[in-house]
Amino acid sequence: MAEKIMVLNGPNLNMLGTREPEIYGYDTLADIEGRLRERAAAHGLELDFRQTNHEGELVAWVQEARTTCAGVVINPAAYTHTSVAIRDALVACDFPIVELHLSNTHQRETFRHHSYVSAVATGVMSGFGPHGYELAFEAIARMVKDRAGS
Amino acid sequence: MAEKIMVLNGPNLNMLGTREPEIYGYDTLADIEGRLRERAAAHGLELDFRQTNHEGELVAWVQEARTTCAGVVINPAAYTHTSVAIRDALVACDFPIVELHLSNTHQRETFRHHSYVSAVATGVMSGFGPHGYELAFEAIARMVKDRAGS
Amino acid sequence: MAEKIMVLNGPNLNMLGTREPEIYGYDTLADIEGRLRERAAAHGLELDFRQTNHEGELVAWVQEARTTCAGVVINPAAYTHTSVAIRDALVACDFPIVELHLSNTHQRETFRHHSYVSAVATGVMSGFGPHGYELAFEAIARMVKDRAGS
Amino acid sequence: MAEKIMVLNGPNLNMLGTREPEIYGYDTLADIEGRLRERAAAHGLELDFRQTNHEGELVAWVQEARTTCAGVVINPAAYTHTSVAIRDALVACDFPIVELHLSNTHQRETFRHHSYVSAVATGVMSGFGPHGYELAFEAIARMVKDRAGS
Amino acid sequence: MAEKIMVLNGPNLNMLGTREPEIYGYDTLADIEGRLRERAAAHGLELDFRQTNHEGELVAWVQEARTTCAGVVINPAAYTHTSVAIRDALVACDFPIVELHLSNTHQRETFRHHSYVSAVATGVMSGFGPHGYELAFEAIARMVKDRAGS
Amino acid sequence: MAEKIMVLNGPNLNMLGTREPEIYGYDTLADIEGRLRERAAAHGLELDFRQTNHEGELVAWVQEARTTCAGVVINPAAYTHTSVAIRDALVACDFPIVELHLSNTHQRETFRHHSYVSAVATGVMSGFGPHGYELAFEAIARMVKDRAGS
Amino acid sequence: MAEKIMVLNGPNLNMLGTREPEIYGYDTLADIEGRLRERAAAHGLELDFRQTNHEGELVAWVQEARTTCAGVVINPAAYTHTSVAIRDALVACDFPIVELHLSNTHQRETFRHHSYVSAVATGVMSGFGPHGYELAFEAIARMVKDRAGS
Amino acid sequence: MAEKIMVLNGPNLNMLGTREPEIYGYDTLADIEGRLRERAAAHGLELDFRQTNHEGELVAWVQEARTTCAGVVINPAAYTHTSVAIRDALVACDFPIVELHLSNTHQRETFRHHSYVSAVATGVMSGFGPHGYELAFEAIARMVKDRAGS
Amino acid sequence: MAEKIMVLNGPNLNMLGTREPEIYGYDTLADIEGRLRERAAAHGLELDFRQTNHEGELVAWVQEARTTCAGVVINPAAYTHTSVAIRDALVACDFPIVELHLSNTHQRETFRHHSYVSAVATGVMSGFGPHGYELAFEAIARMVKDRAGS
Amino acid sequence: MAEKIMVLNGPNLNMLGTREPEIYGYDTLADIEGRLRERAAAHGLELDFRQTNHEGELVAWVQEARTTCAGVVINPAAYTHTSVAIRDALVACDFPIVELHLSNTHQRETFRHHSYVSAVATGVMSGFGPHGYELAFEAIARMVKDRAGS
Amino acid sequence: MAEKIMVLNGPNLNMLGTREPEIYGYDTLADIEGRLRERAAAHGLELDFRQTNHEGELVAWVQEARTTCAGVVINPAAYTHTSVAIRDALVACDFPIVELHLSNTHQRETFRHHSYVSAVATGVMSGFGPHGYELAFEAIARMVKDRAGS
Amino acid sequence: MAEKIMVLNGPNLNMLGTREPEIYGYDTLADIEGRLRERAAAHGLELDFRQTNHEGELVAWVQEARTTCAGVVINPAAYTHTSVAIRDALVACDFPIVELHLSNTHQRETFRHHSYVSAVATGVMSGFGPHGYELAFEAIARMVKDRAGS
Repeated sequence: MAEKIMVLNGPNLNMLGTREPEIYGYDTLADIEGRLRERAAAHGLELDFRQTNHEGELVAWVQEARTTCAGVVINPAAYTHTSVAIRDALVACDFPIVELHLSNTHQRETFRHHSYVSAVATGVMSGFGPHGYELAFEAIARMVKDRAGS
Repeated sequence: MAEKIMVLNGPNLNMLGTREPEIYGYDTLADIEGRLRERAAAHGLELDFRQTNHEGELVAWVQEARTTCAGVVINPAAYTHTSVAIRDALVACDFPIVELHLSNTHQRETFRHHSYVSAVATGVMSGFGPHGYELAFEAIARMVKDRAGS
Repeated sequence: MAEKIMVLNGPNLNMLGTREPEIYGYDTLADIEGRLRERAAAHGLELDFRQTNHEGELVAWVQEARTTCAGVVINPAAYTHTSVAIRDALVACDFPIVELHLSNTHQRETFRHHSYVSAVATGVMSGFGPHGYELAFEAIARMVKDRAGS
Repeated sequence: MAEKIMVLNGPNLNMLGTREPEIYGYDTLADIEGRLRERAAAHGLELDFRQTNHEGELVAWVQEARTTCAGVVINPAAYTHTSVAIRDALVACDFPIVELHLSNTHQRETFRHHSYVSAVATGVMSGFGPHGYELAFEAIARMVKDRAGS
Repeated sequence: MAEKIMVLNGPNLNMLGTREPEIYGYDTLADIEGRLRERAAAHGLELDFRQTNHEGELVAWVQEARTTCAGVVINPAAYTHTSVAIRDALVACDFPIVELHLSNTHQRETFRHHSYVSAVATGVMSGFGPHGYELAFEAIARMVKDRAGS
Repeated sequence: MAEKIMVLNGPNLNMLGTREPEIYGYDTLADIEGRLRERAAAHGLELDFRQTNHEGELVAWVQEARTTCAGVVINPAAYTHTSVAIRDALVACDFPIVELHLSNTHQRETFRHHSYVSAVATGVMSGFGPHGYELAFEAIARMVKDRAGS
Repeated sequence: MAEKIMVLNGPNLNMLGTREPEIYGYDTLADIEGRLRERAAAHGLELDFRQTNHEGELVAWVQEARTTCAGVVINPAAYTHTSVAIRDALVACDFPIVELHLSNTHQRETFRHHSYVSAVATGVMSGFGPHGYELAFEAIARMVKDRAGS
Repeated sequence: MAEKIMVLNGPNLNMLGTREPEIYGYDTLADIEGRLRERAAAHGLELDFRQTNHEGELVAWVQEARTTCAGVVINPAAYTHTSVAIRDALVACDFPIVELHLSNTHQRETFRHHSYVSAVATGVMSGFGPHGYELAFEAIARMVKDRAGS
Repeated sequence: MAEKIMVLNGPNLNMLGTREPEIYGYDTLADIEGRLRERAAAHGLELDFRQTNHEGELVAWVQEARTTCAGVVINPAAYTHTSVAIRDALVACDFPIVELHLSNTHQRETFRHHSYVSAVATGVMSGFGPHGYELAFEAIARMVKDRAGS
Repeated sequence: MAEKIMVLNGPNLNMLGTREPEIYGYDTLADIEGRLRERAAAHGLELDFRQTNHEGELVAWVQEARTTCAGVVINPAAYTHTSVAIRDALVACDFPIVELHLSNTHQRETFRHHSYVSAVATGVMSGFGPHGYELAFEAIARMVKDRAGS
Repeated sequence: MAEKIMVLNGPNLNMLGTREPEIYGYDTLADIEGRLRERAAAHGLELDFRQTNHEGELVAWVQEARTTCAGVVINPAAYTHTSVAIRDALVACDFPIVELHLSNTHQRETFRHHSYVSAVATGVMSGFGPHGYELAFEAIARMVKDRAGS
Repeated sequence: MAEKIMVLNGPNLNMLGTREPEIYGYDTLADIEGRLRERAAAHGLELDFRQTNHEGELVAWVQEARTTCAGVVINPAAYTHTSVAIRDALVACDFPIVELHLSNTHQRETFRHHSYVSAVATGVMSGFGPHGYELAFEAIARMVKDRAGS
């Protein structure tokens, strides 16, 4: 059976493509999900792509991924900077985790320079816009394969 | 059709009038809503008055207001000091925003001196008790009218 | 005899309407005073409206207000962030105090995020432009009436 | 009628016994609840034992406890360090509150050294593992009895 | 032969019951020692209960406990916040350590929020007043028994 | 001819005896000046006692003292914490300087714990109320005599 | 019977007159004690003058003063900056306390700018050299008399 | 008609040449003004050279310069580090501003390392002693000419 | 003619594969360069791959890239955290820049959490080990193509 | 023989005139050198004008200047904020040093507000663009002459 | 008569060789003293080797050394980081002082990175284990000889 | 074959004996090398003694030492406080490292109190002047022998 990758999106990402496109681009989350489905198929991986505005729901999804998935790509959006709960959920996972940000957070407000998630993620990517999802998926697919092979 | 103003209330404001009345006064949220309805009617504006204890729900309501309202008055209560998610939802709105606090936050604990919302609000009011809602409504009504007229 | 409200304006506010109108608007201090006179008359209150560039003069005026007025609206401008002397004068006053700022100070330089006055004011308003004076006057008029009635 | 004690558990505690047992031990939350039920019976107290991943739900439960319970034991987990909303709900309660942590938070990351809850709790315990729930229950039972007797 | 628990009390605790009873209660240290003796007897443990105003003496007592006791309860009082020497003595001990404070240190001056001892203690309790000694003794008794059984 | 001591008082000290007497006492500045005149006479010294709300005037008075006096007692009040200009005026003086505060500034807001003046004063006194002026005068009289004698 | 004033001296003050005389002067502690004895006699007060290098002994002496004296003058020397234990002993005293420093601590290393004692002392004096003891004695004598008279 | 340059001097600069000559040199302000008059004449520029100890007066003079001058050289002295009011006055000016300091402020106390003025000045010079006025005048003359020519 | 991508490697990366392989992996820089050559060929891009231990040489290479390349991938290694010079060289470049780190810098010493480069890079990747070079190359190739096409 | 002035330029200044001309102007370093040569000739001074991207080379040049020159003008560019080595080289020089910056560093990123060089320079200039070199040369020429004459 | 070197050891060093040998080694203090006695004999110096857990006793011993010894080697252990009293005792000594630490304090907790003693010591050594005592003795012997010879 | 010790010297140490001799002494680096050669011979060790002003060269030399030497003594001079690159080179070395400073860095500017090297060195020495090189050589010789013997 195909291994599953969960791609989790945090608050306000449901607005993608409509709000502040000069920062975040014109792609919607559905556009991104579509491209990831193609990549997943090519890799023989299953994709579970979700978005929520609730911190508690992200926590629950990570807990769910813990026993059902082979890796997680997470764009925690605003919760990156404020959620210890998501960090605690992730730290209990024994698989690769990619933290992803559409914008380069280092070019924005100071409070966006700190992430509670980075210290428990395997790798971090920021500033590649919607294309970053594809890079992150390639990264996690590679790590999942390396693990399977080792 | 009348323009709509959303008035959003954050966590614990459902307890208003019952908890710590020496700080917050004896008016309930329903009392306040009643007085705002009268003001809205006088201004020919529609009022949408809500309260929630959930950060994610405040995020969703701001997203909803973005396409249905002419302005927002928000009392984020405790989330003022901890929520980047609400800030991110507000920053995508292209209309006037009034941030409101019942108590004078500068007279309280140090962590209440910082607001994630203020930098994305049009104006900020604190310390006027329940009457502050009426002042904030007058302010937003004026700004909405100025915009319509310009 | 009518109760008196003192409205005090700090340094550079005499330039209002001429400097940086994109931040502060095109109204002059005289325009604002005119509108407040109308509001004062409507409330049956006396208005004493002043401006100075001198910290020591603001201190003296607050001392004067202490025994002659029922409330103070103060826009300390630059002294907001640097004057303990004005704070000390205000803290000795036993009546409502509204601190007012034309611009939203939270959107400006970091040193403008701290106010020596806020902790001794009853309420604080910022970001409402010249209209803020009218909102502040309404607020203090209400507080003066509530006190008289209690 | 028996007085009720609410025992509230925050995010990720539903994973107890399965994640990071070298830090948190092998007991599940159900094991702990079972032992507390015995203690409650021995004290003639009612027990209401809950867990949630949602900050807003913890806020609502504390509000509920405020009028129905005689005391609260709360393990806010990750929200300890980030939630002003839970603090605000607790501060309105006029009964004993015990803050509880399974691990010794002072031995972990720096951001876990600060608790928004401690300043509004009656007492704080950390580092006693699952046994800490029993110690906390004994503490609150004693305080509830002392209050009843005074 | 019975295992021994040392209960160590730091500076000014000899004044307990006489100074600031509204913070620390009316029990004297002798009252507390009396109640602990009963608990120790019930557990079949020996109790060694001491107080000193000297940092160096606390250091020496912890060194003594290291080879003669099965666990230590320590209320370092003021030295909690200033003594690296006591921490260094404790860190060399290979048995359970409970750090205890009568008052809830998180509700007091900022310098009391940091403890040099917590990071080397097994568990920490604060805010339970004189009753805290009994809770701490129960905690250490349990840990000593768990160790013996493992 | 008698040597002269200048005693300088900063902003709001003209209100002494009327504002916040629970902090500053019931003596007026005139009462204090009266008692100092007696002490000056006893010491065979001339007294020059002044008060102003203006920072610039304090600067000018210190410059004047520099060439006409044998020592200065200064209560800079609020300017203690904000005035580099007064410090710069004092640092140019080659005679004893006593910095005086009515209240114990260390028991008040954090920003009152720092003084720009202390580092350029000979000695500092705070917390002795109106009596502090007499102690300060005794101190400066002694220092002036010691200098004359050396 | 004469009321007693305890004058306490902290570490290294036994070296006074021999070490760093350019900072501390050439008077020995015995010289100072002699002059204070004369002042005490003149005021009809008893003097108890002590020095120790031990923090714990200062704690014990303050505890002793608490029930036997009418006031304390304390020069905590180095412990000023590091001892919470002495502060805790002093805070339990219900009589006037004068904190005294020979040198002006504000002109020395930054760590000497903070005193744990100042916030619990009645008044503070620094920079007056050996003469400061006489000023401090006058201050405490006055406060003791004022208390007796009130 | 000749364009005018205003050269403004802040507090204590009237003492130049008499106080601390080892830091500030032996030239008086009149000596400096004399040399600048020659330079102004050589450039065909008018010179307006002033000094005050009052922050409010510096504010007023900058406001005056705003409509009557082609550029300002300002040595704000102590107000450099404490005056937001002067900064606010300068920021409204649409002409070149040179901030000047006699001493190298980076070699002095830490609080002199920050200037409220620098961020709104065109250029900054410090450490060149009285000669710095001539360098600053050359700089502003050049900038005024460049503007006229562009 | 093929567009060129410069891939720059900072200090100690010449040791890759030999030092601390548990952090950095067993691949050498030559292995990585080999794989990138294949990718470059597939994209029709030219590759210029370099390493140096000298900050100044990195500066010069970025200056060279500025006029000869279409994009830069830079792993500044230790200079990430200390070099403003490299940042200044990069900020002058008008093409995409990818900042790359082998390890997840957020899991290492605090001083590695800050990068002078991130704020001037287009995107940032860290924690993907040697594979990160391939991901970074894909990212820059995509950005170069997007630019060419726009 | 003519005295020599060394003018040293740090990293990226070789790009002057081509990168970010809106900040640094259109003059190249060669243009600037040309104008300085004229000034040097007029003053009868020799000019040694250099640029390097290497910190170590700047160190060596300052060491060379120490025994061959009468003064140094240095624009350390990025190394201003990061190089203790250059500071250490300069501090050993017993002649005038002018630190120069093209842009007003106080208007740029926070890390540019601190200079390791300023505390060991005689004077500092920033914000005068390419013209600053001429001002700096005039300043050093004057200082060299004053020294020769004294 | 032979000159004497005092070697002082602070709290917990009496446990050396028994506690945490992986950090501090297996040598006891007696072993170390033995080796130093040999070195002292070889140098014709007298050795006075002591240990105490009391800060006040270290203060007294340094005072004693001041008039009887030619130099001090001090390992203040935990008091390194908390004792101003020991620093004050040392600063009055006019002979060489070597501060010694067994472990490399820079590799341990942050609070161990600051030493109150270093600024008043002649030289500092840390991280050489028990052998450090011999190196420190050689260092002080050399300095004592250099002094005698000069 | 003799084991080799590399002794590395950072920027400005080539000036030793000529610059600031009151801090660094009159010995030149050649004098020091000479004495170390004698010590090396006595120990049967080879000595490789070098100096450079370039950070990158120090990095390369440490890399070279890694495979050719048995230990390193490094005086990184100014790079101590600014170079992560040298730290990264050292951390890859599996042999003893002694960090050496001529002056006592704790008595100098605050920025010299932090060393990037100390945390990766075995031991640290500062303040022993040129003699420190001999002490450091003895220390490393001993550690190399201990390693060989173990």
